[in-house]
Amino acid sequence: MARKKLSVIGSGFTGATTAFLLAQKELGDVVLVDIPQMENPTKGKALDMLEASPVQGFDANITGTADYEDTKDSDVVVITAGIARKPGMSRDDLVQTNQQIMKSVTQEIVKYSPNCYIVVLTNPVDAMTYTVFKESGFPKNRVIGQSGVLDTARFRTFVAQELNLSVKDITGFVLGGHGDDMVPLVRYSFAGGIPLETLIPQDRLEAIVERTRKGGGEIVNLLGNGSAYYAPAAALVEMVEAIVKDQRRVLPAIAYLEGEYGFDGIYLGVPTILGKNGIEKIIELDLTDDEKVALQKSAASVRKVMDILN
Amino acid sequence: MARKKLSVIGSGFTGATTAFLLAQKELGDVVLVDIPQMENPTKGKALDMLEASPVQGFDANITGTADYEDTKDSDVVVITAGIARKPGMSRDDLVQTNQQIMKSVTQEIVKYSPNCYIVVLTNPVDAMTYTVFKESGFPKNRVIGQSGVLDTARFRTFVAQELNLSVKDITGFVLGGHGDDMVPLVRYSFAGGIPLETLIPQDRLEAIVERTRKGGGEIVNLLGNGSAYYAPAAALVEMVEAIVKDQRRVLPAIAYLEGEYGFDGIYLGVPTILGKNGIEKIIELDLTDDEKVALQKSAASVRKVMDILN
Amino acid sequence: MARKKLSVIGSGFTGATTAFLLAQKELGDVVLVDIPQMENPTKGKALDMLEASPVQGFDANITGTADYEDTKDSDVVVITAGIARKPGMSRDDLVQTNQQIMKSVTQEIVKYSPNCYIVVLTNPVDAMTYTVFKESGFPKNRVIGQSGVLDTARFRTFVAQELNLSVKDITGFVLGGHGDDMVPLVRYSFAGGIPLETLIPQDRLEAIVERTRKGGGEIVNLLGNGSAYYAPAAALVEMVEAIVKDQRRVLPAIAYLEGEYGFDGIYLGVPTILGKNGIEKIIELDLTDDEKVALQKSAASVRKVMDILN
Amino acid sequence: MARKKLSVIGSGFTGATTAFLLAQKELGDVVLVDIPQMENPTKGKALDMLEASPVQGFDANITGTADYEDTKDSDVVVITAGIARKPGMSRDDLVQTNQQIMKSVTQEIVKYSPNCYIVVLTNPVDAMTYTVFKESGFPKNRVIGQSGVLDTARFRTFVAQELNLSVKDITGFVLGGHGDDMVPLVRYSFAGGIPLETLIPQDRLEAIVERTRKGGGEIVNLLGNGSAYYAPAAALVEMVEAIVKDQRRVLPAIAYLEGEYGFDGIYLGVPTILGKNGIEKIIELDLTDDEKVALQKSAASVRKVMDILN
Repeated sequence: MARKKLSVIGSGFTGATTAFLLAQKELGDVVLVDIPQMENPTKGKALDMLEASPVQGFDANITGTADYEDTKDSDVVVITAGIARKPGMSRDDLVQTNQQIMKSVTQEIVKYSPNCYIVVLTNPVDAMTYTVFKESGFPKNRVIGQSGVLDTARFRTFVAQELNLSVKDITGFVLGGHGDDMVPLVRYSFAGGIPLETLIPQDRLEAIVERTRKGGGEIVNLLGNGSAYYAPAAALVEMVEAIVKDQRRVLPAIAYLEGEYGFDGIYLGVPTILGKNGIEKIIELDLTDDEKVALQKSAASVRKVMDILN
Repeated sequence: MARKKLSVIGSGFTGATTAFLLAQKELGDVVLVDIPQMENPTKGKALDMLEASPVQGFDANITGTADYEDTKDSDVVVITAGIARKPGMSRDDLVQTNQQIMKSVTQEIVKYSPNCYIVVLTNPVDAMTYTVFKESGFPKNRVIGQSGVLDTARFRTFVAQELNLSVKDITGFVLGGHGDDMVPLVRYSFAGGIPLETLIPQDRLEAIVERTRKGGGEIVNLLGNGSAYYAPAAALVEMVEAIVKDQRRVLPAIAYLEGEYGFDGIYLGVPTILGKNGIEKIIELDLTDDEKVALQKSAASVRKVMDILN
Repeated sequence: MARKKLSVIGSGFTGATTAFLLAQKELGDVVLVDIPQMENPTKGKALDMLEASPVQGFDANITGTADYEDTKDSDVVVITAGIARKPGMSRDDLVQTNQQIMKSVTQEIVKYSPNCYIVVLTNPVDAMTYTVFKESGFPKNRVIGQSGVLDTARFRTFVAQELNLSVKDITGFVLGGHGDDMVPLVRYSFAGGIPLETLIPQDRLEAIVERTRKGGGEIVNLLGNGSAYYAPAAALVEMVEAIVKDQRRVLPAIAYLEGEYGFDGIYLGVPTILGKNGIEKIIELDLTDDEKVALQKSAASVRKVMDILN
Repeated sequence: MARKKLSVIGSGFTGATTAFLLAQKELGDVVLVDIPQMENPTKGKALDMLEASPVQGFDANITGTADYEDTKDSDVVVITAGIARKPGMSRDDLVQTNQQIMKSVTQEIVKYSPNCYIVVLTNPVDAMTYTVFKESGFPKNRVIGQSGVLDTARFRTFVAQELNLSVKDITGFVLGGHGDDMVPLVRYSFAGGIPLETLIPQDRLEAIVERTRKGGGEIVNLLGNGSAYYAPAAALVEMVEAIVKDQRRVLPAIAYLEGEYGFDGIYLGVPTILGKNGIEKIIELDLTDDEKVALQKSAASVRKVMDILN
């Protein structure tokens, strides 16, 4: 009955916050990994988190390291490594650099944890998840990208504010790529089960959708230096929890499509069931013509990024 | 049955983490405050945290602001503002700058929340809590400094590692000032109620005490740039929770002494009972001669800092 | 910053479980009340619960009493008192006895806590909530009946089992009276936002709805002696939490209608917003003709019970 | 990454409450077992608990059964089966009946879960744990009795009331058998690390110790019919959690002694470390002469019960 082992690659704000939230939930022992130049700060963050454990009341080891051997036999590995999006930088600019980072990180992960599940956050997340998938040689159910949980979290936040209601009762739904190309399915979004269209005027709802699309950029612009990390970390933790606890949650995830929704050989955001086998199922929905067009546009956009990959 | 209102002054890592942990526990709505130049980053952090709420499952508003009017009628205000200790910088160097910050911050707090409780983290925390106390004109039970919860958290962490035991079962006890002058009462520190002296060899125990004393510096040195914030934030949150929920916790706190332990007119770390009235009681313990000497040394050190105050 | 005070009338299984779950969430101090003949067992249950608190890690006083003076200045009072439904007993048989109980209980509540919120569980709950409303003289927002949270909890459980999915992602929706007359709005029920009609064959869905309608009876028949109490208690606690924490949850509740949905002067299950003012709003939905007929039938059934009231 | 499987034998109040608290913490899927005559009520309780899960927000299957095959491959099995202590009944009267129950229950457990950990609550718990140990043929680390966690929980509750302090900060310590023969080590009991002797007058402290000794009887007398179950269930859950999560908690437990404290071939309450291997270690403390005498008396009392065993 050993504890689960969870590794987080990248000790930046998102990686560190993810490590903390994983430990806080006692989902397993956490290894926070970064490059050798960052070894000491990574150790410092891990130790600081560990020192919070007696007060927060959780039992979980948290260690910082620059040595992938410390990730040996991880159950789940979360990849947050990569260069961050800066104000004004397009997501596509990140591709080539982050692809190289994904490749080297994946080699290390696979070397020490050949049976792990990998959850990818690094942007552009669709192409980066694809890169990790290819480099790892893992089956598709064990390589998963995050975007929809974060996008819907933002959507739910904005709706809760608009209606002055508990976030607990707001649900949202998105398909497709992260960010600008995301395809929000407002008709599958509810407040206490009540369709949002009946509660929020159309123009306000459109404004919320648009704000959600630009949600990452809004934070980037406000921070001035750096990007969002609390909500992204929370999203990652929800996905890891679903896998570790075999919850069979219905969560949007970046999944490898082989025919679903008419796409093949591409990682795209779709509704999935997350459980002990990672992506246990992709849920296929009937789409309206408009939604099909939007999803195709989103897929085309992902393809364009994939074309940049070496 | 309105929610509690909790304000956190200073949106740096500690302030932001404190805000997040307060919201996560649904202790109240949280206002994160910083200076006008930091208004947008503060708003960005608050929004990012709020966007984590649907996923983490908490209902709490979190707002970022540079306008103290937004803190109006706060129940508790946490002060984390101030310049941070940098590698090699003595704690005393911070005094004059942080004193000015405390004064202006306190004026704003008092103006908008004349009935609030104030918890101070800013270093050197004994002197800064004293400054806030004087500037606020508040009764002593409503102005409280944090140091012992953090110091004991570190001590407990090191002991748990040493014995390979759950942090839940380790207790620790400190008196006096923060850091180098802290007076750890190892005879009041236990693992599952068992005195640590019987479980850990004397030299290892001394090493742990010494490491605890230098605990802040250890993190500073590892990070290279910045200081600890997870454990300090957790400590602040535990104190706020004790007050907001009227838990009557037995927690070490920086309290204003009027005769207790033979000191007068000084803020010093002592065991207290924290409840709905803030510091409801200072617990006086019989000290050994050695402990008395150490506490006097610690108090003298605090006095020396107080002498620097304008 | 005093703790909230929560009283639970009736120390049977539901009342006791409600008291425990309220304390566990640290929503306030809990007073468990029963008739003088039950004073000692009530004290015994309260003490047993309190003795669980150090292990479960919650700070809340739990006291048992037969003296309503101990409920003085309660913030919320939950009524679970009344005779229980036995196998084969129709809900209507309970009316007259429970009406008398409601009247005397309400007089005591009002005497000691004139500003409290009252949540009623006692069956037949629509008529009993009406009785408490009339007897208390309280405004309608402060007298609330429970049924829909429980009914949807059962529905969600059955759907989660059917689809082998996390209960966290299943939502349900009911209108009208409790039990046989309940009007489930399957079109407003989802798994991860996806309409259940697209995931579950129609005949299975109908079987689930039917099972939900008979959900209370299913437990009664299995137990052989007594009725459900875990899920009813959880439902009550969710409603109390929404009020105490001002969450503005969208929850179905038995609310007093004055024109909404075309009814007047009747307590009926409708979607509401629960917050610090109790029922802050009744949400009106467009209903299909079938749903309107079903709701009218349900209301007629409630009226029939109301006619039995003295 | 399959979920843990936890079985609870005996669906009475303690067993049912244990099942609920285990599920609530998402420690695993729970199987509640009772004899064939109780099959339906057991199923009813399990279903009622499961129906609470959407509202309480936990993902765990809870099933009721009279077929031990459903417990197959359990990770931990908790035994609460046995006839209950009634008012006036000595603990010893229970021995022969409960021994037979332990034997048959253990055979079934071992048949289906040969690698499980067993935690025993049934009274007289020292002798019953011994019976299960012998019947199972399991190594001693995998057969554990509960008594000290409950006894200290009661002690902590009474101390918290006496001092009007948070239960979180009170620790207690007992050795020896359950109930009248328990050996409380007040010198190892603290409030916030402060020895209770310095905080509570000697006569009050003795009264608290005496009340703790009679703590089970106090509840039995109050209830009039039945015995405590909330605090016992909480105690069991804490022990199971320590094992399932490998927490290495320092908890008092009924452990098999082979030389420790000078005893051999007897199950007795001692401080232990509970982790993934069950009892990972027995902690031996230096005892005063008085404590040694008390422990010998307690052991003699356990031996006397063991002599009754067939």
